[in-house]
Amino acid sequence: MKEFSKQDSKLLEDIMLHRRDVRGNRFLDKAIDPSSLEKILFAAVNAPSVGFSQPWEFVVITDKARKNAIKDNFDQSKSSEKKLFSEQQQAQYSQLKLEGIHEAPVNIAVFYKPSEEPVLGQSCMQEVGPYSVVCAVQNMWLMARALNIGLGWVSILNPENVKKILSAPQENQLIAYLCLGYVDYFYDTPELERKQWNKRKSLESLIYKDSY
Amino acid sequence: MKEFSKQDSKLLEDIMLHRRDVRGNRFLDKAIDPSSLEKILFAAVNAPSVGFSQPWEFVVITDKARKNAIKDNFDQSKSSEKKLFSEQQQAQYSQLKLEGIHEAPVNIAVFYKPSEEPVLGQSCMQEVGPYSVVCAVQNMWLMARALNIGLGWVSILNPENVKKILSAPQENQLIAYLCLGYVDYFYDTPELERKQWNKRKSLESLIYKDSY
Repeated sequence: MKEFSKQDSKLLEDIMLHRRDVRGNRFLDKAIDPSSLEKILFAAVNAPSVGFSQPWEFVVITDKARKNAIKDNFDQSKSSEKKLFSEQQQAQYSQLKLEGIHEAPVNIAVFYKPSEEPVLGQSCMQEVGPYSVVCAVQNMWLMARALNIGLGWVSILNPENVKKILSAPQENQLIAYLCLGYVDYFYDTPELERKQWNKRKSLESLIYKDSY
Repeated sequence: MKEFSKQDSKLLEDIMLHRRDVRGNRFLDKAIDPSSLEKILFAAVNAPSVGFSQPWEFVVITDKARKNAIKDNFDQSKSSEKKLFSEQQQAQYSQLKLEGIHEAPVNIAVFYKPSEEPVLGQSCMQEVGPYSVVCAVQNMWLMARALNIGLGWVSILNPENVKKILSAPQENQLIAYLCLGYVDYFYDTPELERKQWNKRKSLESLIYKDSY
C-alpha cells in the first residue's frame, strides 16, 4: 500500500497555497506543451465521481473566433454584474482584470453530462453530479500549478450563451470556463485579498463541534 | 516565485491516483490526531472561492447520537435509492458498503453559507458559490490521502434532514457529508470500477477540440 511521508503532505500543502486564480495580466504568449496539457486532463479524469459516473466532458479551445464570442459574452456579463455593487466598489470593480480569454493560449470549457441511467449515490442529491465535475476542475487547477502553469476560472459568463457558442448538447451543463497558460508571476496571495476586496476569514470562525 | 519540479508534479499525480472513496469496511478504530485534522481543514480554506467569498462552514462530528441519526437517514435513503436499479443491480447494490459513519472516528458535514452581499463573479452563475465549497472538499480529500487518512463522501442522505440533525441555519446548504479515519488498506482502483459497476471512460472520448 502506498504510504506518503510528512514531506509529501507538506509539498501538497505548498502546491495548494501557491495556487492562484490567474487573469490576463499575468499570462505569457507561450504555447502549453501537449504533454503538460495531457497531464492536466489526466488529473481531471482521476477525480472522484459519484457512483464512478465520470460525468465530465472537456472542450479545449484555441480558435480565435470562439474566443472572441466568449469574450463578448464576458464583457456584457461584466457590465451587468458591475451594477450590483456600491459606487465605490464599482470604481474598483472596473479596474479589475477578471479573465484571460485571449491572453491564455488555451481555454477549456468543462461540462457536466448527465447520465441516462440512474447513478448510484445521486438520487437524494442530484447536484453531486455537477459536484464531481468541480472536483475534476480542482484537480486540474492543482496539477496546472504543480506544472507552473496558471489557471483562471471565469464565471462572469452566461452559461447558455457559452453552450451555443460551443454547440454543446442541450442536456449538458457548463460547470467551468478555464483559461490556462504560463505566467510571468504567481502572486503570493489572492488578488482580491491583496486589494482588500474581501478579508480572509479565520479558520476557527468556520468550524462547529457536533452541531451549530 | 515558487517553481515546482517535475518530481513535484509526479508526486501530486501519485496522491491523486491513490485517493480513494473509503467506506466503513476499511476504517480503523484509531483517533485522528488533532494536527492532521487541522491540516485537512487548513487545506479546505485554502481552496479557491468565487470573489474570495470563502463561503464554507464545517461541522466536525464525533458525537454518537448525531451519528446514529445520520446513519438512520442513510439507511432510509439507501432503501429508496436501491429501487431505482434493475433486479440484478439491486442484488449487487445491497451488498455494497456505502458509508462509514460509525466506523470513521470523525465525520465532517460541509456547508455552503450564502453571502448576504453580492459576490463578485457569482451573479451569472449562482452555483459557483456551492462549487467553491466543492473545491474545498477536494482539497480535503487530497490532503487526507497525503496524510494516509481515508475519506469517504456520503451522498445517500436527505440533505434537509441532515440540516435538522445538525441544527444548521435555514439558509445553509449541505454540500458534502464526509467520513474520515485511518484505514487498513487503500485499494489500487475505485471499488465500483473493480466490481464492474461502471467502466472507466477513455480520456480521448471526453475531449472535444474548439466545439462539440
